[in-house]
Parts: sequence; structure tokens; C-alpha cells
Amino acid sequence: MFTKVLIANRGEIAVRVARTCREMGIGVVAVYSTEDRDSAVVRLADESVHIGPGPARRSYLNIPAVVEAALRTGADAVHPGYGFLSEDPDFAEVCVDNGLVFVGPPADVIANLGDKAAARVLMAEAGVPVLPGSTGPLRTAEEALGVADAIGYPVIVKAVAGGGGRGMRVVPDRGSFTRAYTETKAQAQMLFGDGRVYVERYLPDARHIEVQVLADRYGNVVHLGERDCSVQRRHQKLLEESPASRLDAGLVEKMGAAAVRGARWAGYVGAGTIEFLVGPDGGFHFMEANCRIQVEHPVTEAVTGVDLVAEQFRIAAGEPLSLRQRDVVARGAAIECRVNVEDPERGFVPTPGVLDEFVPSGGPFVRVDTHGYAGYRVPAAYDSLLAKLVVWAPDRAQAVDRMDRALAEFRVAGRGVRTTLEFLRHLTRHPEFRAGGYDTTFVERVLAERAQDHTE
Amino acid sequence: MFTKVLIANRGEIAVRVARTCREMGIGVVAVYSTEDRDSAVVRLADESVHIGPGPARRSYLNIPAVVEAALRTGADAVHPGYGFLSEDPDFAEVCVDNGLVFVGPPADVIANLGDKAAARVLMAEAGVPVLPGSTGPLRTAEEALGVADAIGYPVIVKAVAGGGGRGMRVVPDRGSFTRAYTETKAQAQMLFGDGRVYVERYLPDARHIEVQVLADRYGNVVHLGERDCSVQRRHQKLLEESPASRLDAGLVEKMGAAAVRGARWAGYVGAGTIEFLVGPDGGFHFMEANCRIQVEHPVTEAVTGVDLVAEQFRIAAGEPLSLRQRDVVARGAAIECRVNVEDPERGFVPTPGVLDEFVPSGGPFVRVDTHGYAGYRVPAAYDSLLAKLVVWAPDRAQAVDRMDRALAEFRVAGRGVRTTLEFLRHLTRHPEFRAGGYDTTFVERVLAERAQDHTE
Repeated sequence: MFTKVLIANRGEIAVRVARTCREMGIGVVAVYSTEDRDSAVVRLADESVHIGPGPARRSYLNIPAVVEAALRTGADAVHPGYGFLSEDPDFAEVCVDNGLVFVGPPADVIANLGDKAAARVLMAEAGVPVLPGSTGPLRTAEEALGVADAIGYPVIVKAVAGGGGRGMRVVPDRGSFTRAYTETKAQAQMLFGDGRVYVERYLPDARHIEVQVLADRYGNVVHLGERDCSVQRRHQKLLEESPASRLDAGLVEKMGAAAVRGARWAGYVGAGTIEFLVGPDGGFHFMEANCRIQVEHPVTEAVTGVDLVAEQFRIAAGEPLSLRQRDVVARGAAIECRVNVEDPERGFVPTPGVLDEFVPSGGPFVRVDTHGYAGYRVPAAYDSLLAKLVVWAPDRAQAVDRMDRALAEFRVAGRGVRTTLEFLRHLTRHPEFRAGGYDTTFVERVLAERAQDHTE
Repeated sequence: MFTKVLIANRGEIAVRVARTCREMGIGVVAVYSTEDRDSAVVRLADESVHIGPGPARRSYLNIPAVVEAALRTGADAVHPGYGFLSEDPDFAEVCVDNGLVFVGPPADVIANLGDKAAARVLMAEAGVPVLPGSTGPLRTAEEALGVADAIGYPVIVKAVAGGGGRGMRVVPDRGSFTRAYTETKAQAQMLFGDGRVYVERYLPDARHIEVQVLADRYGNVVHLGERDCSVQRRHQKLLEESPASRLDAGLVEKMGAAAVRGARWAGYVGAGTIEFLVGPDGGFHFMEANCRIQVEHPVTEAVTGVDLVAEQFRIAAGEPLSLRQRDVVARGAAIECRVNVEDPERGFVPTPGVLDEFVPSGGPFVRVDTHGYAGYRVPAAYDSLLAKLVVWAPDRAQAVDRMDRALAEFRVAGRGVRTTLEFLRHLTRHPEFRAGGYDTTFVERVLAERAQDHTE
């Protein structure tokens, strides 16, 4: 096992990874930007290295600075968390070139799956159902329109380099296609430095269901069941749960098997996620593969009892998988809420500031992953995720009740600071959520209801 | 189910009970003393009633004040937590007389099991092994000496009204017996207003293993496995775990069956605990029965997934047990540490004060039950338990590593405030603890080692 790991990230995921390092007896090197000098991971780490000023491109995205910090501190591995450099094949390669183990899949696998158009092809080869769409990036607006026409509307235009809900546009009809195509290309160029896009059929009322997989270097692949991530606002997940509610057991089994097949075909190594859309007809379709630990991994941990970050380290250290498929036994139901420092009343605008009060939820079957503490200044430079609140219960109804309680007791206050706690509570108390089986249009409908209520 | 419950307690257990009330949709009435006006449960409750000044006898032990608060607020049940009035048969009776459901066993069962000498007889009748000893309270010092001589030394003199490690003296030999007998009687009279004592064989290097039971009104009794509570200082538990390490599976099964038999014979209703001593020869012996939720109940919750406080409410509301014995499936290993506001360097003297910093542990498989928060003033009037830190893992070795991590990250600071965090960490890192199978002499030996180290 590694003796020292550099965590190339910040916020709650840096804390999360540091915790498992501690439990495994691995030394922790934190890196931090100027804005993050008082961050929780710095307090938890054995060593901390300042890697630059606030803007991510000058610190958390600065590959030379991160690698230099790892080499200087004698780290033998780098854990990238999620976001930032976690799915950058160049970073994975530079780590390896410098004698550092990158805790994630090999660079070429990241590159193959990071190209969303290529990933579609790869999965289709593995026999994983994909939505009708282009078999590769589109060269011209005319070619794109032809593909869209052949698929039938609505379609979705997606950036090849996109993912995680960024760089995509839904096109309801032929008339709006070319403009959407052009805009997505421009946005993709701006966001990812890669203007290539592809088109696939859009399922308006689908469910977003993803499967967690673990794969070692020796071709062993298992899945750890599914997560329902359909509670989204503008393609950003707000809440996730496992297992998915009101989903046919046979379908879940098929998706698990497909995810394992896809991961094996892609040569996947590490912890990864295969995301699917499940249509109202019960058909499932590959959406994208994520080569990182997901924000929502704790719900899988809660039902399976498996520490996914520990598995990442074991796999990266060259150990064979400790779990066979039959060892993975899900128990009960888990829900995660993302507590963001945002104002739901003002279009979810981030509200950074000092947390004068910060009392996380606790008690039975409640987990809180956070970098927050009383007195912490939430910086404006980064995303607004402050805490992940995770509950477990023997069944979904009790988990929903537990989440309601846990949301109600979480106290965050500070001048100008707002959080999504109340909004999340509204969502989890909504009859449609309680009933289960909701799709990705749920949040937009709730928001419309609220707007209506405010108007009346 | 109840619509409103009064919680006749304070501190972490009041918070614990309030959480389950919330999850079950039960309204919460908190009671508080003057010193506890800023306590966490007051913040969580729907209503709060001030019941008197700091000293417990004028507030938390003041039966008329508590019952009056329940009646005034329209509560339909009272949950007593542990300590205070939880095992007072008079309180249980007064509740019932006032039309309030007492969440615990019937008054006569509490009385029968609260008389520790009578409980021995009761358990022996049920076929539960008891240690050789007197069959009832002793009338004279001479009679007592005769019994002790017949048992053989060492023996232990115990208050009939004692329990929870209070009111007992170990007698190593005949020469010290009469003095110990007299002292225990005097202490019992002072502590419990009841000077009756009894004698039984003392097992110097035994393990303290207890079994959690649940019993409904209809004669259904199940057990939820065992807890090892051998990590004690002066008969006070510091750390508990489930399952017990290095304990023969056949023995555990026998103890579970004996606990169920004993509870059924005693007419037990509710959540209760049968405590046993397990000798080095593998024999097990009834020690006492506790008619309350135990401080250490979370380790059982962690391995079984059962919310014991919810079960208490269901049973008290007259529901039949929702669990059959075969539904109780233990998974993995859990450990609880009691984090006290005490100074281990000065004989564990309480160190109340303001918590300028309070950052509880978090992350995967960690539970914190506490009434503490940043800015909270720990009052001097009550016991020094500030938080219970509970971890779960697939096996004991990983649970111990997780506890080490969780203890290390828990931050409590304030002027003059000390905690047992570092001492607990020392215990859990000790090779003897890591090896498992330790007995109740473990902590005293660790303390002796530390004293030695300080001298050198």
C-alpha cells in the first residue's frame, strides 16, 4: 500500500479521501490555493502545500504545481477526487511519467471514455444499449441536421469533451436545430477547448440511473448496484438515492451486467460509473461513463458497506479486487442531499461568506461529508457544495423520513449566507418524491409550482 | 402512534430520542433545567418546558415537575432516556396514573429487576446462570460473612438498589470482608436511600458482555446480539463494541437464548439489556438487567440496522414486535467511544466550560450523538458525557482503524476544557485492544502503564 498520497482537490472530497487515507495508514499531503488556506483538509493533512492563487487554473488545475508538490513531499500516489484534473488524461500521464501512481484508470481509458462520442461507439461494441445518434463527432451543420432528422426530434446536441451535465442543448424541433448546434459548438470550445459535438435522441421524461463499478488490473469487474440521480436542476444533481425506487429488479440486473460488460470492454481499472437513461418504456440507454469517484458515491457505500475510496487505493496499488459479485450485498436504502451555499429564491446564485453557525446533522444512520465548520469562510472562487448529507434506513420510506429530520436539524447561518437545505426539504416532502419513480423533469416541475405559489 | 412525547432527560440522549420522534412524526416536548436553557434538545424540540434549577433532584428527578410539564403540553407519552428517572418504578407508575404512556417496562417489572438481589433469583428461576451468592439481601454482617466464606474469595458486595457500576466493593479476602460490607451498606444508604446489600462471587478477569433484547406486550421477545463493554474504568464503561471480539459463537448464541428466556420470565416489555460476566473459562453469569435504553445502544443499531428508540415507541404504543429473531441479521462490527469532558491527566476530573471549537468527526460509517456545538457551555451540574462517537466497518480491524481516524479528527477546545479523546485513542491503539478478547482489567492496566511512563 502507498505510504503517502497527495490529494489533488479541495472541499468535501479532499476531506473524504483524507479520511480513508488515515484509516489505511497512508500519509496525507493536501494542496491548497490561497483562498483555501483555512480549509478542513489542511487541518487533517500531515503536510500541506500551497499551490497557487484562487482561480483553479492557477492552482487546482495547474498540473506542474500539483506534480511538483507531490514530488517535493515524496508522495507515491495522487488521488484526484472529482472535477478539476480527475478526468484529464494528460494529468494521469504526467503523474505516471513522474513515477507517481495516479489513482484512477489508465490515461488512454480516460481519453477513450472522455470522448463522449467515442464512448458511445465503445459501449455499442460491448453490447450496451446506446440511444440512436451520430457515430462520432459531426463535421458540418448540414451533416448534423441530417443525423438529427434521421433520429427524429427531440434530439440533444452534446459536446464530445463534455460530461457531468455541461455542454449540451436539447433541440425540440428541426427549426431550432442549427442554432443549437452552433451554440453548443461555441460553448464547448469555450468550456473545454474542444468544439466537437455529437447528436443523439433526447428522452424528455427519462430517469437518470447509474451503476457503480469496480475493476482491477486483472480483468475482474464487479458492480455495486445502481443510483437514481434523477433529481436534477439544469442537469446538475441535487439528490441521489440507492437503490432506485420503483425500478424493475430484472431491469436493474440487466443494467448491472451491461455496466460490467462495458467497463470490461473499455479496459476500465478503478472505481467508475456507467450512467444510463431509463425511458418510460423501461428501456435503458448508455449516457456516459465517468472515470472518477462520483459526488454521490456515499449512497452506494451506505447500502453495500464498501468504502469505495479504499477500493480505489487497493486497485491503484495493484491488488486484485477483494470483492466478488456475490460478496456485494445491498441492504436497505440510502439518500444523499447536496447542501449548497446558494439562494434558491434568487435562481440558486452562490452566497459565499462566513459560517457563523454550523451544526451538522447527526445521530442514527446519518453521515455528513463536509469541509465546513463554525467560523469557516466559504470562498467565492469554487463551486457551492458545502456538505453532503447522507441517510440510511431499512427501507426507502424510513430513509425519506430520516432525511427530512436530518435536513431540519442541520444549522448553517452567516451574514448573506443561504443554503439549499429548505429547498431540499421541500423536494423530499413532495408527494411525487415520496411516491418514488420520478424522472428528471421532477425538479423543474417543483420549481414551476413554487413560482406559481409565489405569484398567487 | 403517539402524537407528542415528552423527553424526561437532557444531553445527548434527549437529542437522540428527539431525532427518532421527528422521523416518526411525533411531536417533541423537551424539559430543561436553568443550566440547560441553551441545550441542543431545546433547539430541536417543538415545545420546551423549564422544570427547575440545575440540581437534578430539583429538575430532572422532580417527578411532579416532569409530569406537570407533560400534562400541560398535552403529551401522550414520556420517554425517560437513561439515568435520572428511567428506572424509577414510582415514576413509571405516576405516569400511568396520569394517563401518560411510560416508554419502558411496567412499574412492577422495573421494581423486580431494580432489586438486584431479587433479579438474581428471578433469573435463576428462568434457568439463566447466576454466580454463586446470597439468595436475597443479607440481614447481618455475620450472615454475610458466612455466605462469603461459603462462596470463597474474592467476593463482591453489591447494593440491592445499585446498578450501572455504582454501590459495590470487591473483597479480596476474609480479613477485609466486614469493613467492605459495612462501607457498602453505608454508601448504598447514602446513594440510593436503601442500605440492603448482597454478596456474590467476584470474577477478577471477566468480560462484561451484555445482550440487547426487545419484548412486546404479547410475549414476543427477540435479542439483537451482544455488546462487549469490558473497557471500563472503575466500573464505568468508556468504550463498547458489537459483536464481542474473540468470543465463541456457540457461547454468544447461548447467551442470547438465556437473555430472551430471562426477559420473558421477568415479563419484560420494551428494550432492555441483560448483562453478563463471562469468565476466562468461558462460563457466563447473569450480572444485572437494565430496564432502559443503554448509552451504548448505537453499536447494536449500527450492526443490525434497527432503530432501537423507534422500537421502544412501537412497543409502548402497543404494536407487536416488527422483528422476528430470524429478521435480526448482524453485519460487520461497530465500536462506540464515550467522549467525556474530563481531564485524564488529573484523575478524570470533569472540566466543564465553553466549547469555543467543536467539530465532530464525520464521513463514511461514522455516527456522532451529541448535544454539543461550537459555543455551547458544558454545565458543571451533570455528568461529563459530551458525545458518543460510533463507527462501523465490515470487520473489527477496519472498525478499529476507522475509530482511530474518527477520534483523531474530532476537535473540541475551550478554556480549561479537556476531553478523553486522546485517552480513548491511546486505548484503541493499544495492542491488547487491537488483539481483542480483553477483559475488564484492561483499562486499569493501561492506566498503570501510563503512570509508569510518566514516572520514567
